[in-house]
Amino acid sequence: MIVELISVGTELLLGNIVNTNAAYLAEKCALLGLSMYHQSVVGDNEERLAETIKTAAGRSDVVILSGGLGPTKDDLTKEVAAKVMGYELVEDAHTKARIEEYFKNSQFKIITDNNWKQALIPEGAIVVDNKNGTAPGLIMEKDGKSVILLPGPPNELVPMFEQDIFPYLNKLQPEIICSAMVKICGLGESYVETQIADLIENQTNPTIAPYAKTGEVHLRITAKAGDEKEAKKLIKPVVKELRNRFGSNIYTTDESKTLEEAIVDLLLEKQLTLTTAESCTGGMLAARLTNVPGVSEVFKQGLVTYSNRAKRKLLDVKKNTLKDCGAVSDKTAKEMAKNGAFITGSDICVSVTGIAGPDGGTEEKPVGLVYMACSYNNKVTVKEFHFKGERSKVRESSVVNALTLVRECILADDAKQ
Amino acid sequence: MIVELISVGTELLLGNIVNTNAAYLAEKCALLGLSMYHQSVVGDNEERLAETIKTAAGRSDVVILSGGLGPTKDDLTKEVAAKVMGYELVEDAHTKARIEEYFKNSQFKIITDNNWKQALIPEGAIVVDNKNGTAPGLIMEKDGKSVILLPGPPNELVPMFEQDIFPYLNKLQPEIICSAMVKICGLGESYVETQIADLIENQTNPTIAPYAKTGEVHLRITAKAGDEKEAKKLIKPVVKELRNRFGSNIYTTDESKTLEEAIVDLLLEKQLTLTTAESCTGGMLAARLTNVPGVSEVFKQGLVTYSNRAKRKLLDVKKNTLKDCGAVSDKTAKEMAKNGAFITGSDICVSVTGIAGPDGGTEEKPVGLVYMACSYNNKVTVKEFHFKGERSKVRESSVVNALTLVRECILADDAKQ
Repeated sequence: MIVELISVGTELLLGNIVNTNAAYLAEKCALLGLSMYHQSVVGDNEERLAETIKTAAGRSDVVILSGGLGPTKDDLTKEVAAKVMGYELVEDAHTKARIEEYFKNSQFKIITDNNWKQALIPEGAIVVDNKNGTAPGLIMEKDGKSVILLPGPPNELVPMFEQDIFPYLNKLQPEIICSAMVKICGLGESYVETQIADLIENQTNPTIAPYAKTGEVHLRITAKAGDEKEAKKLIKPVVKELRNRFGSNIYTTDESKTLEEAIVDLLLEKQLTLTTAESCTGGMLAARLTNVPGVSEVFKQGLVTYSNRAKRKLLDVKKNTLKDCGAVSDKTAKEMAKNGAFITGSDICVSVTGIAGPDGGTEEKPVGLVYMACSYNNKVTVKEFHFKGERSKVRESSVVNALTLVRECILADDAKQ
Repeated sequence: MIVELISVGTELLLGNIVNTNAAYLAEKCALLGLSMYHQSVVGDNEERLAETIKTAAGRSDVVILSGGLGPTKDDLTKEVAAKVMGYELVEDAHTKARIEEYFKNSQFKIITDNNWKQALIPEGAIVVDNKNGTAPGLIMEKDGKSVILLPGPPNELVPMFEQDIFPYLNKLQPEIICSAMVKICGLGESYVETQIADLIENQTNPTIAPYAKTGEVHLRITAKAGDEKEAKKLIKPVVKELRNRFGSNIYTTDESKTLEEAIVDLLLEKQLTLTTAESCTGGMLAARLTNVPGVSEVFKQGLVTYSNRAKRKLLDVKKNTLKDCGAVSDKTAKEMAKNGAFITGSDICVSVTGIAGPDGGTEEKPVGLVYMACSYNNKVTVKEFHFKGERSKVRESSVVNALTLVRECILADDAKQ
């Protein structure tokens, strides 16, 4: 089945916003096993919008439009799509009541006349309630084709798609699609791909698709089957095989879990506290950890020691170490981690010191050279990295690898016992 | 003049990447005063790509294609575009030499046969050298239309557009376009828009367009004129008028300068050192400052005191303050800033403490309540904020407002003298 996206909005044509809706919808459609050959962006213009919808409905089975469902006169998507599909607009009592209820609970208590425009629906269309806004989603079916209208704001579009549109599309197909995610840290993209080359070579159902992220590789396993149970049965042995191959480098099989969440979970489980001692990452590592709600149980403080003096004063790094080896050295990283744990009374301290660039590099210590150390259970593990890319990339790579190092140290200690 | 974008790539249709190129190109085209009515995304498929180019060239004066210029067989953009436009492909000696030179200086020393595919160009096309990759940019002109091919990777596309394509497009037009940027902090979007409603109402040339960013408002002033000098003459009084209205809330008129860069510049100029003392932002503020290369002159350390104990131990916040007023209070923020400056010997210390959510809010102290304080020259300024949105939004708003507070305190002290 072929699906096509049309994003409606002048703000996209002016470059005021990035089309994240298209990327989101495309990824979900791929996951559903739908083929996508075209995406378009068009403004709130009747003639051009009608032309774009006609072309799309002519060559695709499903057309998903997003945006242009607002209450103002400029918003034309529903009116134009209904006309192209030969639907009449009528007032929907259910939607009218929902909009009234929505306004009652919102900070804007006054309903203006143009809000009732959103209660008009193409007669006979499937109405999809919007839990985060006033514009309903709409599905028009005709001659075996479906035209789906979704509101433009991502905080309305995404929940609506997850809850109602994804199941609708899944039901249109003879087979349902199920997928699982395996998230890997501490291994490079090309290494991971080489290790699963044989699986990818011979794959039919399920399939494995690798996605590279900074310092991580995500593998999506997708199966088609008659029902969910059967699909999950197909996926299970593949996940098991990936576990055999990548072992503890797999930090989660939970789609929504981030690396920092996995680390925080591990710390909570082992009842360990963590401190960060950062130089070149300058607070990014602590900031990433404190993205996680509830981190306060295990993360009490972080130290950003950007200058040599701060390294000495706050982390007690020896003057001679800084003088003889330099701030960017394995010895400095080691002292930062060891002393950081001791001074703060934390179970674990992870340190990062390096040259993020663009300046400060030398032939001996080039931009991208980063040392990190992790102190845990009277043992300090040090690692040396050579990252590529610009300042922000070096810093981001450092953060992910520091998180990975903490995880490795905890698991290695576990294995010993 | 009408311009249209075609992004070529299966990774866009699968939702693996977000189409940031389209947003970038659309913003630049708007800035040039070009009208854009359509954007399309299509895969590396000969038939569909040819059809899409034909449609675009039929209805627009300029068609900009990005992506699909790589060395592999899958990459078809050049071949298909040349065929549609009636151009023959021939080897370009200049490009061949440039590719050889590029490989000589890269870490990948081996040129494979398929790299020479990138030295083929449509005979008579304008060749635009790629300083960050092998694929050249290409411009084909025919019957008053221009078809422009750009490489897909943003780090190749953006510099090429800035340097060669922007001036090319500017020359195509009878009038040239010039713009200036005025960046404002410390004022809300709606306040700024109200203050310039009269200017926007009556605008013809130049025009003012507001762009809202978290905690900031950017105003772009765009003028059309016969030459650059004339355009700049039109812009100057508008910038002056905006300066009259927003005064010191304008932190820069430099397009590329960020708020953190402006703060670091100010600190460097005044030879002041800054320390951060963060609770709910958990290192984000320090991380934002250390985005700036060269910040080490003025930023020596930051303290992330997430727990009450860390606030006591590292920042000497009084036990009674935490007990009586709570960690999220003006008094705690004040002590964090005052003591932070004293303990570290910094000229300035800015502190942030608040409830980022999703948990931890109460009726009295709801999620989004944030206190921040800035200690400078024996004076501590405290501010209370009520931010809306989820955890990440509250944290991001806090960071921008903390930077703004630092700036305000320095300027206020300046004004006194």
